[in-house]
Amino acid sequence: MGRLTGGDPSLLRRINSAVVLQALRAATASAPPDAASASLTDLTLATGLSRPTVEGVVDGLIDSGLAAEVPAEEGGVRRQGRPARRFRFRAEAGHLLGIEIGAHRVAALLSDLDGRALGSTVREVSEKAPADERLERVRAAVAELLRHAGVERHSLRAVGVGSPGIVEADGTVHLCTALPGWTGLPLGERLRRSFRCPVLVENDANTAAVAEHWKGAAVGSDDVVFVLAGLSPGAGSLIGGRLHRGYGGAAGEIGALHLLGREASPEQVLSTTGEPLNPLDEAQVVRVFALARDGDARARAAVDRFIRRLVHDTAALVLALDPEVVVVGGWATDLDGMLDPLRDELARYCLRPPQVAQSLLGEAAVTTGALRLALDHVEAELFAVDSTVTARRARR
Amino acid sequence: MGRLTGGDPSLLRRINSAVVLQALRAATASAPPDAASASLTDLTLATGLSRPTVEGVVDGLIDSGLAAEVPAEEGGVRRQGRPARRFRFRAEAGHLLGIEIGAHRVAALLSDLDGRALGSTVREVSEKAPADERLERVRAAVAELLRHAGVERHSLRAVGVGSPGIVEADGTVHLCTALPGWTGLPLGERLRRSFRCPVLVENDANTAAVAEHWKGAAVGSDDVVFVLAGLSPGAGSLIGGRLHRGYGGAAGEIGALHLLGREASPEQVLSTTGEPLNPLDEAQVVRVFALARDGDARARAAVDRFIRRLVHDTAALVLALDPEVVVVGGWATDLDGMLDPLRDELARYCLRPPQVAQSLLGEAAVTTGALRLALDHVEAELFAVDSTVTARRARR
Repeated sequence: MGRLTGGDPSLLRRINSAVVLQALRAATASAPPDAASASLTDLTLATGLSRPTVEGVVDGLIDSGLAAEVPAEEGGVRRQGRPARRFRFRAEAGHLLGIEIGAHRVAALLSDLDGRALGSTVREVSEKAPADERLERVRAAVAELLRHAGVERHSLRAVGVGSPGIVEADGTVHLCTALPGWTGLPLGERLRRSFRCPVLVENDANTAAVAEHWKGAAVGSDDVVFVLAGLSPGAGSLIGGRLHRGYGGAAGEIGALHLLGREASPEQVLSTTGEPLNPLDEAQVVRVFALARDGDARARAAVDRFIRRLVHDTAALVLALDPEVVVVGGWATDLDGMLDPLRDELARYCLRPPQVAQSLLGEAAVTTGALRLALDHVEAELFAVDSTVTARRARR
Repeated sequence: MGRLTGGDPSLLRRINSAVVLQALRAATASAPPDAASASLTDLTLATGLSRPTVEGVVDGLIDSGLAAEVPAEEGGVRRQGRPARRFRFRAEAGHLLGIEIGAHRVAALLSDLDGRALGSTVREVSEKAPADERLERVRAAVAELLRHAGVERHSLRAVGVGSPGIVEADGTVHLCTALPGWTGLPLGERLRRSFRCPVLVENDANTAAVAEHWKGAAVGSDDVVFVLAGLSPGAGSLIGGRLHRGYGGAAGEIGALHLLGREASPEQVLSTTGEPLNPLDEAQVVRVFALARDGDARARAAVDRFIRRLVHDTAALVLALDPEVVVVGGWATDLDGMLDPLRDELARYCLRPPQVAQSLLGEAAVTTGALRLALDHVEAELFAVDSTVTARRARR
């Protein structure tokens, strides 16, 4: 960091505080919670700030609960004379939630400020449940999760939410065909009543893409397409490591790709009777797949049609975006024979075929990604020196 | 800009120089070249630098040819006593080229350092011409253009090039099916032999997207898909105002979208005889379109099939990317009835349909975008204080 002069003192304090907190967290993140700590000398070296400045900041962080002094007997090497004071980041000073709202279930994941999972919960919900009932199910799941983990609600610093549909920046659902009463729902506003912290709502396939990039099949790759395979498929993508939402939040809403220039909907494609399936009746779909595995010829043909269609949709996404990795998640991942035909198709049609991987996070993908969004928010608040400086420069 | 301390003096000089040059150009850009100028007082106010610093920088800029002192009689208000010295940015101090290399033609566009066009030229070339012949045609076009404009070759500061195919960062063509001998060609390296300045090679649809954003149908919109319609369609996209190249430079290579899940290639689709057309034989295509306009039923059916296919391809891109605006260019734009079916299809299948516009730049789109890339490069070099500062901070 270049030193900055001429700013207002409170801003300078905020920047110094963020720099020290970042250094403290980095010093303690890689080791087990109780083992690692940093001395004032460590922090002075890591930040380039003066020792009195660091000491003042650390005392402020202790007052606010974000740092703790590690008692000398735990703190490692003891030298002659008075032992050096040592400090650690208090990841337990706040908590984060990642919430999934789906057609058949709601789920929640709880973590500390380091993103370490402390517990999770899942509740079933009817695909026909109205919005109020679905939201009530979310609240009940969260209450149970907090209670089991012994975490107070006011300790939550941010909540991320993954939902089907096109979600606007303020958390309103612009359009959603998968959940009853969801289109037009001010989902962010409704959930904010239950929490006193920021609530960030994002499309579910987008959160899953973020999750696979964070700790799943796309770790180390910044250009990722995640396909949430199912009867009504969706997709999320990262470009240069950042979520690509599109101009109106509708990027990757590939449900309609199924239909482009074709006659049959996926519900018809997967039908063995000529009558279309109910797109939300997953039990019926599971039966078709089970029949196919048992060798039923009509079911096998239906599943083949379905896989071929999904493969085409994914290939279209790949041609448009040219990702490094395609991750396939959702229930269709369980199908034998989804990934190999996809690889073949991509090799055939794409000028530069990407890697194809199966989701590593499976059913945890949406909650994990929602949690990551909450963590991003808190990190930007607590640690983001650069954005503070940039904002300051932009204002001048 | 926050002032920076502790840097090395030559870096500080560079930053100051960029800041003053930027202010000088801004002061003179909005007015006709000979009318506008800035005094030392203007530049001191605009930059926040001290008067002696500004004066030193301006003298350096005059030495390097990037600024000129405006003689007092031209320079506006005359006060009592010695008139204030006034200065202007010398846009004529350097020049830029935008080059298009296509299947049937090569073209070039010349500008000054403000991006003001000074001339252009087009030469036909056979779609069967080998790479050496095509490159020779490019060199001849450029030589003619420079001669006509009276611009010396060594005055070129950067050259942008738009070419079909997947282009790597160093300007090597990774894959190109449209031009003979083009796959694997070190295009950037070959062209650099003709110029002593940087040569930037980019996919042609990408450069066209940049052009429409700069001064065409997508001005004011940062999320743009440009479709270069033709027998072998391509697309370029801007996301947040920046070109989206994809992980391997293959984003928008939608030629294969035509084929996904379908039986017929576009050459078959457009055929009136059952025999596929030659994808590069545009004269044959033009005949089919002329027949269709004259009411020939088989030609009309072929054109309808072709438009429907192109509309589907574009819709797939829109579903993947969710742009604010889709700009359609290339020869298929001339077809009556391309844009309306596209709007209908997008309204039908996209959850949030984008605006649809026809290219405003037409045949000039690729050279204009290539020129803009060259201009971006020079601006980053001459004016980019932020990137200089960022680079410096990254090194620390």
